[in-house]
Amino acid sequence: MNEAARKSWEIVRFDGNTSTVENGMITAEFPFTVMLNGQEFATMVCSPTNLGDLLVGFLASEGVIRFYHDIASLSIDETKGFAHVEVKNPPDMIQQNHSKRFIGSCCGKSRQFYFQSDVKTAKTVTSRHTITVKQCYALMNQLQEKSMQFKETGGVHNAAVGTVDQILTMRTDIGRHNAIDKVYGDILKNRIPLKDKVIMFSGRISSEVLLKVSKIGAGILLSKSAPTDLALQLADDLGITAIGFVRNDKMNIYTHQERVVEAGY
Amino acid sequence: MNEAARKSWEIVRFDGNTSTVENGMITAEFPFTVMLNGQEFATMVCSPTNLGDLLVGFLASEGVIRFYHDIASLSIDETKGFAHVEVKNPPDMIQQNHSKRFIGSCCGKSRQFYFQSDVKTAKTVTSRHTITVKQCYALMNQLQEKSMQFKETGGVHNAAVGTVDQILTMRTDIGRHNAIDKVYGDILKNRIPLKDKVIMFSGRISSEVLLKVSKIGAGILLSKSAPTDLALQLADDLGITAIGFVRNDKMNIYTHQERVVEAGY
Repeated sequence: MNEAARKSWEIVRFDGNTSTVENGMITAEFPFTVMLNGQEFATMVCSPTNLGDLLVGFLASEGVIRFYHDIASLSIDETKGFAHVEVKNPPDMIQQNHSKRFIGSCCGKSRQFYFQSDVKTAKTVTSRHTITVKQCYALMNQLQEKSMQFKETGGVHNAAVGTVDQILTMRTDIGRHNAIDKVYGDILKNRIPLKDKVIMFSGRISSEVLLKVSKIGAGILLSKSAPTDLALQLADDLGITAIGFVRNDKMNIYTHQERVVEAGY
Repeated sequence: MNEAARKSWEIVRFDGNTSTVENGMITAEFPFTVMLNGQEFATMVCSPTNLGDLLVGFLASEGVIRFYHDIASLSIDETKGFAHVEVKNPPDMIQQNHSKRFIGSCCGKSRQFYFQSDVKTAKTVTSRHTITVKQCYALMNQLQEKSMQFKETGGVHNAAVGTVDQILTMRTDIGRHNAIDKVYGDILKNRIPLKDKVIMFSGRISSEVLLKVSKIGAGILLSKSAPTDLALQLADDLGITAIGFVRNDKMNIYTHQERVVEAGY
């Protein structure tokens, strides 16, 4: 547990009408600005841990890079909260369009994308790798057990990548999307092959989360929480098995059930 | 409960290794693009309810308007998810700078603002209105009881404004910040005076949430969840009583305890 990710704060705790004053641990929130090829690209608010992973995953999510070696140079000023990145082939017009709404045709798959950067980077997952029901429960229990910070301070999200049997990398952040971007950064840096991998997430399955999983290229997403309808339409289109409300020995499969097998329970 | 806010979806529910297939309700996620004085200003993802309130609150949060009457015209296309707004006095350079990082002096209050739009719109709250411990518990119980959508679909946040005795307006959204912006929009439209009001929120107290409460002008914020350190520094500076983890008859006061009185428990 990185000490930078939490701070001490004096808290007046009430239980009924009885109060005690004590120092408790609070989750840290850190503004982090990305300067891309000399220009201000974005400012995000994050937990100040694994900033290099966050930066790499964020750039890939935004379609600025595809591989780790697309980065020519990278330096992070952890005190001031700035990253200076040079990429080899900056996409055209990224400054103008990366967060512009994409108005696609009114039918077909493009209708569910609403940012131009997603149209370019989201991809259909064709992996045929399977997972058993029992493995789903076991992976989410592992995520839960590894989530120490949540128990101490509350209010952070956890994302992880793993095989069907065990978690390989877990990352934590106050921002739900940042937690996944940190995992994505680690995957790119270490060139982890994705076809047989699973993404686990403590937060809700929103369209943005689902799109990140498709960009990463994993076929199975497990979440402790609820999905949205737009995320499920995307999961259906992009070939991702979306499983929500995985808690103890219960779960809901929403899309592409064919990857889940009951054998081995 | 607005029907547009949820959709039916076929779910394979597993309990242990036993599965059943049934139609369940899923939270809707809706892309909503704001065209401001003819230009694309922002696209947010939201629950498709109270879009007018969301728009007004969002424009105020971003510093584009201060009062409801700053809007010259407003139309919302609910089918396509577009709002067309004309404001009377658009702030200078809003297109260029509203989400740029603000680099203030290295000491004093400005250091905690990281967006230029916040420097302009956040304000110190000087209200001396008080609340009892029992009223805090009762208000959060009211919020919980009114949160029917969460029980049915999971995954939405609730925000409300009220007196110390009762909730006046509650709004729901899949986006934590949208829920507060919807409440803010309602406050501006109905010119609700804020000095004696309380904001209640189901989500985490992040710096962005805290800044919205300061822009709204309420002195007391109650949340079911955890705060971040940056939010608490801002609450301390801006004169807001931040109370978190309000659950049943327990709560944590983090800042400006002077507004909480034990009398009347």
